[in-house]
Amino acid sequence: MHPIGRICSPYKQSRNMPIQGIFNKEVEAWVELEQKYSNGLKDLHGFSHAIILYHFHKSQRENIEGWPFLEPNKHGIFATRSPHRPNHTGFSVVKIKRIKANKMYFTEVDVSDQTPVLDIKPYVKYFDSRDGARCGWLDKHFKDGNILDETILGR
Amino acid sequence: MHPIGRICSPYKQSRNMPIQGIFNKEVEAWVELEQKYSNGLKDLHGFSHAIILYHFHKSQRENIEGWPFLEPNKHGIFATRSPHRPNHTGFSVVKIKRIKANKMYFTEVDVSDQTPVLDIKPYVKYFDSRDGARCGWLDKHFKDGNILDETILGR
Repeated sequence: MHPIGRICSPYKQSRNMPIQGIFNKEVEAWVELEQKYSNGLKDLHGFSHAIILYHFHKSQRENIEGWPFLEPNKHGIFATRSPHRPNHTGFSVVKIKRIKANKMYFTEVDVSDQTPVLDIKPYVKYFDSRDGARCGWLDKHFKDGNILDETILGR
Repeated sequence: MHPIGRICSPYKQSRNMPIQGIFNKEVEAWVELEQKYSNGLKDLHGFSHAIILYHFHKSQRENIEGWPFLEPNKHGIFATRSPHRPNHTGFSVVKIKRIKANKMYFTEVDVSDQTPVLDIKPYVKYFDSRDGARCGWLDKHFKDGNILDETILGR
């Protein structure tokens, strides 16, 4: 595994960053790929959303159980989206704004600056959407369209 | 990056495997995690779906542009879900059936046997569903709920 590029994000620290991109749709960032991968972006502009896989490069620890941002209860790490996980792999769905040479500009940003990118995939609703999914300990927090203050870090 | 476990799947080769799990909901497989990660699965049973990140270990090549399963037109690799991509990272949304010790059983299987697993995350519809997404060159194939024969490999 090697970085194929980096994320250039206005979030230099975690402060004010949403825990998931969907909780702040205004902020823009971009992926800057290594030049040799530029042609890999061809035809991605036809998609409204992309999946970015990346490395949580700031995490210094690997937990098996941990405390998520949204509540004080401990959960198995694979039942949370915490960065402090085995392999430190991050996953975000982002909204594509435009693509220019080796850069993909996007909103719905929840990734800090200089994060190493491992892969970009097109978001395909026919494969990836599960609208009726049951969401365990998270359902109670987002019931009836509720959005918690804790979805923005440090607020 | 290191495998945290393996997938035990009835698909020994790609023949009869769906290109995405959602195209055959009957077949069951499981992830067998290394024992030391068992507690990481705590509370995942509350979720109906999980995201599995894995390594396309059978791919021997890295394309920048390539031909997807569904049509003869070439696309940028980051606009396809082809395994022959930089870093060979795979991503699947699966349906959780049950969890027992270090094993997570699931349906909606599109992964071949002995695939190395890198991460498991809970699928959270509040973060991950984009029902209205525009899907580029794929939209024409799935228009009006159409399902192509080519969604099952070798059929």
